[in-house]
Amino acid sequence: MSLLQSLEWRYATKKFDDSKKISAEQLDTLLKTVQLTPSSYGLQHYKILVVEDAAIREQLKEASYGQSQLTDASQVIVFAAETEINEAYVKRYIDYTAEVRQIERAQLEQFENVILGTVSHKTEDEKIAWAHKQAYIALGVLVSAASELEIDTCPMEGFDTSKFDEILGLKEKGLTSSVIVTIGYRSPDDHYSHLAKVRKTAEDLFIKI
Amino acid sequence: MSLLQSLEWRYATKKFDDSKKISAEQLDTLLKTVQLTPSSYGLQHYKILVVEDAAIREQLKEASYGQSQLTDASQVIVFAAETEINEAYVKRYIDYTAEVRQIERAQLEQFENVILGTVSHKTEDEKIAWAHKQAYIALGVLVSAASELEIDTCPMEGFDTSKFDEILGLKEKGLTSSVIVTIGYRSPDDHYSHLAKVRKTAEDLFIKI
Repeated sequence: MSLLQSLEWRYATKKFDDSKKISAEQLDTLLKTVQLTPSSYGLQHYKILVVEDAAIREQLKEASYGQSQLTDASQVIVFAAETEINEAYVKRYIDYTAEVRQIERAQLEQFENVILGTVSHKTEDEKIAWAHKQAYIALGVLVSAASELEIDTCPMEGFDTSKFDEILGLKEKGLTSSVIVTIGYRSPDDHYSHLAKVRKTAEDLFIKI
Repeated sequence: MSLLQSLEWRYATKKFDDSKKISAEQLDTLLKTVQLTPSSYGLQHYKILVVEDAAIREQLKEASYGQSQLTDASQVIVFAAETEINEAYVKRYIDYTAEVRQIERAQLEQFENVILGTVSHKTEDEKIAWAHKQAYIALGVLVSAASELEIDTCPMEGFDTSKFDEILGLKEKGLTSSVIVTIGYRSPDDHYSHLAKVRKTAEDLFIKI
């Protein structure tokens, strides 16, 4: 299937088949694809938690208004924004870039200064908002990649971020939860799978200039 | 190619071949795919501008620190967040949903009230931040879909949003620019296409629980 067909096939899965698990190989392909998501300056200002632990998921479910996807899906993916985007973070990124590209660090100095300029002009809140947006790009790639693999997804914003941060110990890790996606396989009796997809018409969504 | 391979192939294109245009058919497939992007409650709180006009693109280039992609790419895609997410917006969405699904509007009343509750609890700034994030999901899908079609992309945040809003008349349309993506075909002499891709290692990006 093309991505167009895959995204026609997908829908926000409300009821997962809790007996079906994503294979290790499929999960690996999915995560490897998401790893390639572009981000501002390549900073990837987030981490991605892959939660399988049943007891933790019970707690996350409680912090998500009891939504059953949290425990019935194969995994819960939690995108968490980096909260400490500072000079040290940028330096580590530039060090790593020099290493990957096998070049002198000095060749990246101009690039580093551009990033440091951007970072220094943002408030703490603006930096976190910036990081959240990057996580949402990864969400778009995850949903695309999962659909290609015929893995069902439900992206979810309806959860208590501070409770998630606490349950997952994110604050100590310099992170805060952005958005989650439950992944797995639809239950045959999820009636949402039969509903017509509602999307803005091309006339309403696109403006051609 | 799988999406994993397509995203390995892609890179943030700095120099486009200005003689190559995306075919009408490919552009149509690309936009139809992006149209399927999921969003919070399905609201799709943004519009997508597809800019081809040369004179307008010259102005956008000036408002983007002179970056050549703005004029050399085949098209400039501007994601613009809706700034008027209010009761009227939600009502129109529910009307439209009832029409698409051919059901009584009354059946959607509970869903409408949930959305209205969410909307009423957000400040104007929070609503716009929410809309921006949805646009970033679409960016992730656009980059995925373009790569599948072997269309090059350069997502860009480095532009003056207020100038973009003015040039494109967004304020009058109840919109504000979020992020842009230039799309087209890489120039054979874009040396960035030969650089090793820098992404966090799996150990650094993923946390398994």
